[in-house]
Amino acid sequence: MAAERPLRIGVIGAAACTPKQARLAEETGRLLAEAGAVLVCGGGPGVMAAACRGARSAGGLTVGILPGGSAAEANQHVAIPVVTGMGYARNVIVVRSCQAVIAVGGRYGTLSEIAYAAQFEIPIVGLGTWKIRAPIRHVRTPPEAVKLALKLAVRD
Amino acid sequence: MAAERPLRIGVIGAAACTPKQARLAEETGRLLAEAGAVLVCGGGPGVMAAACRGARSAGGLTVGILPGGSAAEANQHVAIPVVTGMGYARNVIVVRSCQAVIAVGGRYGTLSEIAYAAQFEIPIVGLGTWKIRAPIRHVRTPPEAVKLALKLAVRD
Amino acid sequence: MAAERPLRIGVIGAAACTPKQARLAEETGRLLAEAGAVLVCGGGPGVMAAACRGARSAGGLTVGILPGGSAAEANQHVAIPVVTGMGYARNVIVVRSCQAVIAVGGRYGTLSEIAYAAQFEIPIVGLGTWKIRAPIRHVRTPPEAVKLALKLAVRD
Amino acid sequence: MAAERPLRIGVIGAAACTPKQARLAEETGRLLAEAGAVLVCGGGPGVMAAACRGARSAGGLTVGILPGGSAAEANQHVAIPVVTGMGYARNVIVVRSCQAVIAVGGRYGTLSEIAYAAQFEIPIVGLGTWKIRAPIRHVRTPPEAVKLALKLAVRD
Repeated sequence: MAAERPLRIGVIGAAACTPKQARLAEETGRLLAEAGAVLVCGGGPGVMAAACRGARSAGGLTVGILPGGSAAEANQHVAIPVVTGMGYARNVIVVRSCQAVIAVGGRYGTLSEIAYAAQFEIPIVGLGTWKIRAPIRHVRTPPEAVKLALKLAVRD
Repeated sequence: MAAERPLRIGVIGAAACTPKQARLAEETGRLLAEAGAVLVCGGGPGVMAAACRGARSAGGLTVGILPGGSAAEANQHVAIPVVTGMGYARNVIVVRSCQAVIAVGGRYGTLSEIAYAAQFEIPIVGLGTWKIRAPIRHVRTPPEAVKLALKLAVRD
Repeated sequence: MAAERPLRIGVIGAAACTPKQARLAEETGRLLAEAGAVLVCGGGPGVMAAACRGARSAGGLTVGILPGGSAAEANQHVAIPVVTGMGYARNVIVVRSCQAVIAVGGRYGTLSEIAYAAQFEIPIVGLGTWKIRAPIRHVRTPPEAVKLALKLAVRD
Repeated sequence: MAAERPLRIGVIGAAACTPKQARLAEETGRLLAEAGAVLVCGGGPGVMAAACRGARSAGGLTVGILPGGSAAEANQHVAIPVVTGMGYARNVIVVRSCQAVIAVGGRYGTLSEIAYAAQFEIPIVGLGTWKIRAPIRHVRTPPEAVKLALKLAVRD
């Protein structure tokens, strides 16, 4: 039955984002859901909420790994809140729970997630995100991002 | 949409369990799934695997919050592995992610989860578990346990 | 040089405690410091602050492993605050960092720590704490508690 | 008494480092100890061990916040091991426990720590470390690094 597990792809990015980043995240979430992947994110607003909204619009499953101590803080498009109560230490859980991550924009929290993904050799696809010496595959559109993430996803 | 979130009920118990505890956990998992709840557990063997097997047999969704660093360690009935890499610190995440927990047997790991549930005022239903000065509702059968957990479940 | 490391002994107990528990904790802290041990605790008020006050009065070193995100929350007798920002997930760190723990009273947080100590086979000495089926050595006075903790302390 | 707390300065960097980085880290550790600061690090080999060795050579106190489950994994110059058992989630604890951090070289683990420090507004001084869009003060020598870290250190 483990063989039947759906892919888990993360969408990481800032709680405060631009309208363009929100559009990119939403389309990314929708395409992931259409491909049958589970969307994993930090469960907050901004990029996370937009990605979840897109995934839910296509009937997808959304997991939000929350920093705080209450499921009530999850954005409304999170179907499965995971309540860590561990603050930003939860960033490492978001990343390790994914088979690939797509970074949309992002600030320092996203940078910590990219660093963790690089350390654990989890493939990283970037949509207008950090340009650093790390194995990020930079792409321009959500369809490219999703196609690449699905292709690179590590097996469990 | 948050209002439509399914209930999240935890089944906690030891990785090493008796055949009787496994039967109790499996029936509990099945009944939770039939009631439409998402099963949350630590993702390991023993009580956790039995509960997941039961839930999956009824088409339910199972979340396994793992102590180690790889989804490959999840029991095969976990649909959504959450990879914490945090060892037994993950016990607190299992508990906080639930709206009620059902303890089946259990040793020290389960005791730590019961303690956390009591601290965070998450309802605890017990099936042959620790008898201590804590607000555990002891019941005798899985149907009683599931009925009580669903009734007591805190709202998000 | 590792051979020269001082022993690390934990004092665990509630943030809200009785005057008697505070006196027990303070004497325990003082005796640990006089024996050259480093006092490890959760860094908060109540039993933790009393133990730290006792240790500092004898010139001892005190480590407070804090749940929140700021060293400012440590009680004033903590010399070395460790800022986890992980909430009560820090309980497991308090316990694992010690070679033995002394529980003074205590509620559910302390119960989670006792459970973790039992799981990791870290010796537990009790001063008026939980009476449960776990390997707690119950004693009546701080001198007995400290003598026993120092004797049972596991080697690194 | 809180006012008398020694400053806590972190030295972050990779477990695998060059001889030059080890020399920089060792001198940095020594200078921090001479200034009366407590050295906080991840407790491992490489940059961490070199920094601890330097600090101990000057009679300083060294705290190692370990990823694994045993104090035995600490480098031999760590006086106070903090055993998290949380893997690389401990990186956030290293950073948050410090009033400033000095990054010596470093790979992805160090990048995650720099990201966390930037997020929590903890001053970062760099000795041949990541060049990214983050508030890192790049310097060339350990005396400059220590002087700047002590000057910038945030108050508790």
